[in-house]
Amino acid sequence: MAITRRELIQGATVGGAGLVVGGVVGKVALGDDSGGGGGASGLSGQAQKVADERGLSPDDVTRAVKTFVPPGRPDMDTHMLFCSGGHSGQVLVMGVPSMKIMKVIGVFTPEPWQGYGYGSDADVLITGGTTPAGGGISKARNTLTWGDTHHPALSETGGEYDGRFLYINDRANGRIGMVDLRDFKTKQVLDVPNLDSSHGGCFVTQNSEYVHISTMTPTLTDRSRATDALTKFPDIMRGYSTFLAINQETGQMELDRSFQVELPPYTQDLADSGKLVSDGWVFINSYNSEMAVGGNNEGGQPLEVGASQNDFDMMHIINWKKAEEVVKAGKTTTINGVRVIKLETAVSEGILFLAPEPKSPHGVDVAPNGEYLTVSGKLDPHVTIYSFTKVKAAIEAKDFERNDQYGVPILKFDSIVAGRVEVGLGPLHTQYDAEGHGYTSLFLDSAVAKWSLGEPYFKGDAAFQLVDKLKVNYNIGHLVTMEGDTVKPDGKYLVSLNKWSIDRFPAIGTLHPQNFQLVDLTGEKMDVLSDTPIGVGEPHYVQGMKADRIKAWNVYPPGTNPMTMKPDPEAVEAGQERSERNGNTVEVWMSVKRSQFKPDIIRANKGDKVVLHITNIEKTPDATHGFAIPRYNVNISLDPGEVANVEFAADAEGSYAMYCTEFCSALHLEMQGWMLVSA
Amino acid sequence: MAITRRELIQGATVGGAGLVVGGVVGKVALGDDSGGGGGASGLSGQAQKVADERGLSPDDVTRAVKTFVPPGRPDMDTHMLFCSGGHSGQVLVMGVPSMKIMKVIGVFTPEPWQGYGYGSDADVLITGGTTPAGGGISKARNTLTWGDTHHPALSETGGEYDGRFLYINDRANGRIGMVDLRDFKTKQVLDVPNLDSSHGGCFVTQNSEYVHISTMTPTLTDRSRATDALTKFPDIMRGYSTFLAINQETGQMELDRSFQVELPPYTQDLADSGKLVSDGWVFINSYNSEMAVGGNNEGGQPLEVGASQNDFDMMHIINWKKAEEVVKAGKTTTINGVRVIKLETAVSEGILFLAPEPKSPHGVDVAPNGEYLTVSGKLDPHVTIYSFTKVKAAIEAKDFERNDQYGVPILKFDSIVAGRVEVGLGPLHTQYDAEGHGYTSLFLDSAVAKWSLGEPYFKGDAAFQLVDKLKVNYNIGHLVTMEGDTVKPDGKYLVSLNKWSIDRFPAIGTLHPQNFQLVDLTGEKMDVLSDTPIGVGEPHYVQGMKADRIKAWNVYPPGTNPMTMKPDPEAVEAGQERSERNGNTVEVWMSVKRSQFKPDIIRANKGDKVVLHITNIEKTPDATHGFAIPRYNVNISLDPGEVANVEFAADAEGSYAMYCTEFCSALHLEMQGWMLVSA
Repeated sequence: MAITRRELIQGATVGGAGLVVGGVVGKVALGDDSGGGGGASGLSGQAQKVADERGLSPDDVTRAVKTFVPPGRPDMDTHMLFCSGGHSGQVLVMGVPSMKIMKVIGVFTPEPWQGYGYGSDADVLITGGTTPAGGGISKARNTLTWGDTHHPALSETGGEYDGRFLYINDRANGRIGMVDLRDFKTKQVLDVPNLDSSHGGCFVTQNSEYVHISTMTPTLTDRSRATDALTKFPDIMRGYSTFLAINQETGQMELDRSFQVELPPYTQDLADSGKLVSDGWVFINSYNSEMAVGGNNEGGQPLEVGASQNDFDMMHIINWKKAEEVVKAGKTTTINGVRVIKLETAVSEGILFLAPEPKSPHGVDVAPNGEYLTVSGKLDPHVTIYSFTKVKAAIEAKDFERNDQYGVPILKFDSIVAGRVEVGLGPLHTQYDAEGHGYTSLFLDSAVAKWSLGEPYFKGDAAFQLVDKLKVNYNIGHLVTMEGDTVKPDGKYLVSLNKWSIDRFPAIGTLHPQNFQLVDLTGEKMDVLSDTPIGVGEPHYVQGMKADRIKAWNVYPPGTNPMTMKPDPEAVEAGQERSERNGNTVEVWMSVKRSQFKPDIIRANKGDKVVLHITNIEKTPDATHGFAIPRYNVNISLDPGEVANVEFAADAEGSYAMYCTEFCSALHLEMQGWMLVSA
Repeated sequence: MAITRRELIQGATVGGAGLVVGGVVGKVALGDDSGGGGGASGLSGQAQKVADERGLSPDDVTRAVKTFVPPGRPDMDTHMLFCSGGHSGQVLVMGVPSMKIMKVIGVFTPEPWQGYGYGSDADVLITGGTTPAGGGISKARNTLTWGDTHHPALSETGGEYDGRFLYINDRANGRIGMVDLRDFKTKQVLDVPNLDSSHGGCFVTQNSEYVHISTMTPTLTDRSRATDALTKFPDIMRGYSTFLAINQETGQMELDRSFQVELPPYTQDLADSGKLVSDGWVFINSYNSEMAVGGNNEGGQPLEVGASQNDFDMMHIINWKKAEEVVKAGKTTTINGVRVIKLETAVSEGILFLAPEPKSPHGVDVAPNGEYLTVSGKLDPHVTIYSFTKVKAAIEAKDFERNDQYGVPILKFDSIVAGRVEVGLGPLHTQYDAEGHGYTSLFLDSAVAKWSLGEPYFKGDAAFQLVDKLKVNYNIGHLVTMEGDTVKPDGKYLVSLNKWSIDRFPAIGTLHPQNFQLVDLTGEKMDVLSDTPIGVGEPHYVQGMKADRIKAWNVYPPGTNPMTMKPDPEAVEAGQERSERNGNTVEVWMSVKRSQFKPDIIRANKGDKVVLHITNIEKTPDATHGFAIPRYNVNISLDPGEVANVEFAADAEGSYAMYCTEFCSALHLEMQGWMLVSA
């Protein structure tokens, strides 16, 4: 079934409630709203009275009972979502099925509630992540204080989430951050050399040996050639597939143990790591293999038209275990501080291959058994399922169609495809359940398609069939099933990440929230259980993990510096508080507890450097204190046991009432002191 | 019932689930967990099966049915909460009873999802709000990018919310912001002269003539005297009650029509505006009338001890209608750019009076009829209810106990009190329902007390009695009933703003979220319906408004600049796009629509000034686009119809793939272009 480019470029126009462009597609009609789990709830008594008063249908009562998390029952949020915040630069953590936001974690963007980026050690992270070997950051904009978080990657052991670390890429600036799930705080921001951007290429390998991140728009590694960037695009621009080695103790990414594989300047997009049979391999979509550069006001073709000419784009297939050997053998070139396997080496050593993918693909998703790779061509109403066994056989047999202009061998489409399923308009992303079903988001249909994989899950006519289809509201991008990108999906729920919400929430102005719809997968038909507004970011990709995999700390050991997760040498205990002056430096070792700072007066002269070492000497979980200095933009959050180090110039005279920003006790207002800066 | 200062200073130590310090207090025992609305739900069929599987009690089923908002039924969130974000510097908007966050509005803190503070016109707000006449802002910290939002103040007409504007103060830096509820965006950030901080003094007058904001810690208006600030504290420090005149069309605060009343250097705290009979008056708590300054590491008393010596502190009673006349008569002194009624004039003109309040009060809350003022002495287990009629009579009769050291007349406690109710330990804040009940938060008890007012609501023994008490989890600060601080409370729900959560949510690290508990007020006993984690701020005060009062725009008229809410002179329509170079300035008029920027190439030389005028030419609601320039920290959000103006120096050479940050269409990835900066 063909759709015009015009329809696709204009996107889904959703005019009113539930209007879906394209109507019924494929073999299965869209479900109606009467799912709900089957039949009357049979309420009586008080609950029925309330249901009647509120106008709840029997199905809505069932949905209420399926999603309600009673007060004081945290165990009933059985799963946790780790959501990129999109251009919020943050990570959102949500509970399932409550769909409530548990925490927003600052990664690339300062987050003042956590005191992230307002004077403490964590400032180094944000600014420290922006001094790449390659340069190219605007100084006028004061270093980067913003990122576009796209693909969270939970650490894995044996292809299952292990609850230790979370990696997330910055789509805008080609960076990557690491969050430690012991305290849910960001520990590292790394500006990856040779990556100016990075879309969906962030995934860990099966045992978290590496976290992978690849370019999206190609990089000009020699920035002095900007004038030629578009005219000599195929020659001087390149992509980079990056394998960042993970320290297994700390989760830190270690650049000196890492490497890159140079890629053609196609626009690399989504990626996924092999698992089980395909462990050791990485798969990366690309689009714009046309290498269009736009120029719509200079007589050129609009970029989105130029980038949609070819019937096929190219999946990149990378043998990273082989690449590792080639790196060990020293066959690399160091570019901007990182070891790079050049494109010609990648070809000659049998590291890089290409496979045709239907038109402008968006999403390559490895199935739980590692055998199937599902690709959605967003300008094609099918999902295409590749067989890794066939891919490997074709590579071994050198069963190539041709080489591309960079000499990279292209596999034959027909030799490696296991099946295709017509799912509907605008297919994007796929996740899985444990029974061999794929769930694919359909942007233009505003729907989710459920379909079957092949053997060993389904055989004969039952394989590669559309099974069910569900309307969502509206314009779904990614979707997530619980642990649905691991070797062991836990498929009770699906969350549909809808980009438009229009009429789904109360009027709150011209910028509409996104809509996360929680979908029940336990019945024969999929059913939307609830709508949830997301009004603090536009989550792009989400991973859903069983909540009991998280073994977070409830409180820090006394005197801990969260940046190192170790004792801070400047920590104090009660009685050790003091101030010292050395030349023009005032240094203070301060304790905080309910309801006082000690010392509670800081005296400085204008021009002094002020250095504060602040220890929260509380041991009770949740006894968090803040430390703010008005008009100095200092705002520190100190969890019990935490130490923060603060340094600033006392450049404005006056009396400043420093105070605790947390409502820590009945006398929290009295938890105050004075900083006096004399002229 | 006496409690020791030690107990209070240490705060409530909550060790396990539901442990309450102090136990049962007063006449009514704490409710147990079996509220829920009475009896079995009588479920059968599918819903009962699910309830059994999930282990939901009949009461929990009733709570589920009471709070569930079915998908696609935005009307069932009948109320909207406007929550200060605390030291997040933002405002959170939440639905009731779903308790889901609809939107986070950036006010004092950059918020990248909304493109607030990352290159567009709105940057002027954040930095523009930090150039006070009085100075005193650290330059080293790059102007303020942080505030501590405390008290949202929804605009009112006739003492009812009118859904037009929202004001909110910055507790840290003495600023105030204004959000326009047509588009839910911040339009003004004002650095209020002579206010270095401001806690709970932000409220509108009955018809939004003024928004009031007062100092918390006293201000040193002559910053050169910092050395003397603590030794000559009573002489050179002062408080300021500020009446900021509101432009009725735009909501803007107009400093030239505004004025301040100088106050003694007690620490002014919560405030409330009179209504109906008390319209024209403002009431402000204070504590630390001892004027303690701390010095705990210099041989002095800890501040919280020094500030808790007196048995009574002082409520400030201000006749602002009289003050308005005095200002008109020119009896003011201009200090740092604002007209000030000096303390001696305030006394001589009969504008300012004091009333004794029990020890370290926290909360003065005017009842719906304007007659009763409830004050909680947080070191006293009672609430004290004053009669405005008695206050006015005492002022007219000059029935004063004495004057304070600044000559301000102090009313006699016994002459003005209507009643007292013993409610429990650590009473803080009170809101009301329409039937004459007050609801007071008890920080140390971790409970909410419901009690009765006097006539005309309750008479004889029924007046001023404790009616019910509910455990909450844990350490409640403020609470909010729907429209509970207006003349017409709509009292179906109460939300308890709990500061600690400990065991109430899944483990997510050492920094615990706050817990908003939704409480049902419709039954005989109050009942906790749900827990909601707040992990993106520490909301201090919240106002709850009927959702149908909001008349927000769904989409902008074409070419609107949100800063002015008027057509932007630089807006373009399709076909008007162009680039111009004048000297070292590159100026671009760009359109954005699905799926392209036009022009899609920007060419600059290193050192050029780049000026962009970007118009989202879409007319479809929710067709939002973003505009980001990697490594230039530029991230703009453009709602349909919106215009943004961006200006920066092209100071870093290279090729930068500018792109749309919103997932706007199936070809959103192709909505991209290039900025080339040549050396």
